[in-house]
Amino acid sequence: MTNINRQIRSLSPDTAGGGATKEQLFVIKIGGNVIDDDIALIAFVNDFAKIPAKKILVHGGGKIATRIGDKLGITSKYIEGRRITDEHTIDLVTMVYGGLINKKIVSLLQSYDSNAIGLTGADANILPAHKRKVKEIDYGFVGDIEPKQIGGGLRLFVDNNMVPVIAPLTHDGKGQILNTNADTIASAISIALSAFYDVRLIYCFEKKGVLEDIKDEASVIGLITKDIYHELLGEKRLFEGIIPKIDNAFAAIDAGVKEVLIGHSEELIQNTGNEIKGTLIK
Amino acid sequence: MTNINRQIRSLSPDTAGGGATKEQLFVIKIGGNVIDDDIALIAFVNDFAKIPAKKILVHGGGKIATRIGDKLGITSKYIEGRRITDEHTIDLVTMVYGGLINKKIVSLLQSYDSNAIGLTGADANILPAHKRKVKEIDYGFVGDIEPKQIGGGLRLFVDNNMVPVIAPLTHDGKGQILNTNADTIASAISIALSAFYDVRLIYCFEKKGVLEDIKDEASVIGLITKDIYHELLGEKRLFEGIIPKIDNAFAAIDAGVKEVLIGHSEELIQNTGNEIKGTLIK
Repeated sequence: MTNINRQIRSLSPDTAGGGATKEQLFVIKIGGNVIDDDIALIAFVNDFAKIPAKKILVHGGGKIATRIGDKLGITSKYIEGRRITDEHTIDLVTMVYGGLINKKIVSLLQSYDSNAIGLTGADANILPAHKRKVKEIDYGFVGDIEPKQIGGGLRLFVDNNMVPVIAPLTHDGKGQILNTNADTIASAISIALSAFYDVRLIYCFEKKGVLEDIKDEASVIGLITKDIYHELLGEKRLFEGIIPKIDNAFAAIDAGVKEVLIGHSEELIQNTGNEIKGTLIK
Repeated sequence: MTNINRQIRSLSPDTAGGGATKEQLFVIKIGGNVIDDDIALIAFVNDFAKIPAKKILVHGGGKIATRIGDKLGITSKYIEGRRITDEHTIDLVTMVYGGLINKKIVSLLQSYDSNAIGLTGADANILPAHKRKVKEIDYGFVGDIEPKQIGGGLRLFVDNNMVPVIAPLTHDGKGQILNTNADTIASAISIALSAFYDVRLIYCFEKKGVLEDIKDEASVIGLITKDIYHELLGEKRLFEGIIPKIDNAFAAIDAGVKEVLIGHSEELIQNTGNEIKGTLIK
């Protein structure tokens, strides 16, 4: 590098001012709509493998656990509409999420030359959690995580060019695997790793992004800042179901995550590049 | 350290002569007799966690896959007495070996402060394999590994004080998980890592070691060298079933493994220390 280049570089907005630049990291979450559809999953994995930056994939459960559970005589129990994870169900989801789905994604990614490593929260203790305390409802083997409890364990993998693929399972440190929501895991990981990377947390969604008109896929709102959000809320221009997602996105941002993106799984390449098609929240 | 101590140390057999000493690594294999018995498994994991040296655990499958398979309507097929892994069976063992059993062991180890990380051969590409070629019998989704194909991938984990816990699954690099014998995996890993560590490969067995008299647990043969082996064979003093195990042990030693030990899972502490109770093959 010439001296002039060095000078120019030292004046660039990336490095000037607020200290050292952090490397970009994508934390990407997929749910049942991708996992339950073989063709969608293969297309997604193919796109995901192409992302040149550092990346982590968090996957949800999908309907296959219910199908296998039905055959095994394990049916989901609900109390007041909330799903309960009993001892048979935790074994079921450990098998299906941590074994079947996780290893399917890992072996597919390996076939695309992406050095995937499948993990639950127990592996290398990446996601310590505690069993949800019983208040009105005993949710059973459900784990709540505190982002602050998450150390830099995942960094070793990421910095060695591995691609963590994380199943929605945590553990209590006493030998018990716990069921934890994949959206929550993606957010907690993003917060914990924001100390080391500029994190864009991407929720892959069945829509192209946050829509002004729920019936019109072309009505994606490109950018939501807090000011814009308050305006949209005041004018009641948002579909109610999306509001908790946006609230969670701002909670992650307030905890250090650089930006959150809500977009369609089919537009992952655009949404990790410079031509964002989904909704960027920052 | 005093100068005198340093001098003594530099003259010890470990460091004198043949170049740098390699650190010790235990590769320990457990099978169904431990996995299928909850009390035995917990006791084993407790002992395993106490081993202060670097270590890797390879586990087999056990009978639980058959029990779950029966409920799911997946029954093992056999051709000429050989078990066949069809597409339903590979999904079953991916769930049970890679999910249920593997994560149970990992979460137990974590509870004993052992930083376990559960892996199949697809994870971080630690065990590349190829689908067994069809000759007389099509074994289905069974993977054969070449120790030479195994890189140093596992070293990153071992050198960062993680404890790999490996399920008996490999992958073909084309997106397919494959079923592979746990003994074979333990041996292949030991061979591959012998370039970096002094490996003692320990097969946990239902007997205390190689017995001169199969009915007498006190008749453990403490040491088998090639000379002793030929003598024992010549005098027909060995139980036939043990001969392939000893042949495999010498094959591993010929490929670089320092020593192989056959012993009872309950005597792991002794067999990883200086008061060996099993049969050391070297």
